[in-house]
Amino acid sequence: MSAHKLETPHEALQRLGITLPAMVRPVAAFVPAVKSGHLVFVSGHIARKDGRSWRGKVGAELTVETGKEAARAAAIDALSTLDSEIGLGKVKRIVKLLVLVNSTTDFTEQHLVANGASELFAEVFGEAGAHARSAFGVAQIPFGSAVELEVVAEV
Amino acid sequence: MSAHKLETPHEALQRLGITLPAMVRPVAAFVPAVKSGHLVFVSGHIARKDGRSWRGKVGAELTVETGKEAARAAAIDALSTLDSEIGLGKVKRIVKLLVLVNSTTDFTEQHLVANGASELFAEVFGEAGAHARSAFGVAQIPFGSAVELEVVAEV
Amino acid sequence: MSAHKLETPHEALQRLGITLPAMVRPVAAFVPAVKSGHLVFVSGHIARKDGRSWRGKVGAELTVETGKEAARAAAIDALSTLDSEIGLGKVKRIVKLLVLVNSTTDFTEQHLVANGASELFAEVFGEAGAHARSAFGVAQIPFGSAVELEVVAEV
Repeated sequence: MSAHKLETPHEALQRLGITLPAMVRPVAAFVPAVKSGHLVFVSGHIARKDGRSWRGKVGAELTVETGKEAARAAAIDALSTLDSEIGLGKVKRIVKLLVLVNSTTDFTEQHLVANGASELFAEVFGEAGAHARSAFGVAQIPFGSAVELEVVAEV
Repeated sequence: MSAHKLETPHEALQRLGITLPAMVRPVAAFVPAVKSGHLVFVSGHIARKDGRSWRGKVGAELTVETGKEAARAAAIDALSTLDSEIGLGKVKRIVKLLVLVNSTTDFTEQHLVANGASELFAEVFGEAGAHARSAFGVAQIPFGSAVELEVVAEV
Repeated sequence: MSAHKLETPHEALQRLGITLPAMVRPVAAFVPAVKSGHLVFVSGHIARKDGRSWRGKVGAELTVETGKEAARAAAIDALSTLDSEIGLGKVKRIVKLLVLVNSTTDFTEQHLVANGASELFAEVFGEAGAHARSAFGVAQIPFGSAVELEVVAEV
């Protein structure tokens, strides 16, 4: 992890071959993120693929591995929002993730799916990316997406 | 929205014809809201109708439109709590909503249901009501309510 | 409750006959808790029994009473994390609980299950344990656990 101290989040993204997409504007009556004091609350981001909802239930249509990729995709979109609204360089710490997995009622590996998001934050922010987290299975997610991700960051 | 700058939240409620009900005391071992620093964490409020739980699953017994009305009802109760515990006039910003929709496993429009709450906060607080948000479908909600709403506000 | 002012959280635990277990290290890519300013965000803790996941759905394999015991067990583990990472003596307030209950789709008493956690915080911290709370039923929880508990505390 020590290498991360030498690179900025944007340099880490470049090393990882990730180009942040344009921020996704909410389709509903809310905003992408709100800063209050030193905390930034980033709205729930659904997983997308090719610009559309990454649909499916993990445990049914989707495997753990695909769910993990979807979680990573949601994390990339959340990074785009953080960058547009705050600037990744101003992020001091990723504080907490809430990872909602669109699950069948007998799928019990939401933690492995959520790692797709957690590992990306660690790769991009190094030690500052080590976060608290809750992950669990929900009945459904808007647009039928496989994963929804909410982030609290410190600036 | 500019008109909102000229009116207080209470004036906005009056214009909307909304009379805040008496605050609902939790029936369990917790409190309606906790202030910590400049943030107020408002407990999850279930949707009520005529003083009782507004029961039903969206996608089964309830339509999107009814779910949206239920979300608005939960928001009115959360406003009552904010007013009783803090005072609406002291709210600087609605920071984040967590909107839980009691959904069937194939209903995917939780965002439209949640707009019932989001739009009310915008109507009452104007720009200060623009919030971050996560909305998703859950297996059930206490008392079988259609919607549960948690609020973080800045004072 | 006034008696609580005279005892520390550790003394309360001793009175209750509770020995905190060793902190459970997350099995995934995140950390047990993150402090940001005066707030501590404690990761979601699943209920455990005899060191393993306390499995089952409330409303099916588990009764309300058993679910409540599971919620209490998750709270004990969350206390262990708070003590290891921050020290219980530094906790000024339990701010908010998020209590996820692994529920069937027709079980509607998540609030009674969640009281297992809420009541323990009240017993250990007295008035400082009075918290905001959201509780609801989810489709599943990692490792099939009956309850997952997330805590926000003020230090």
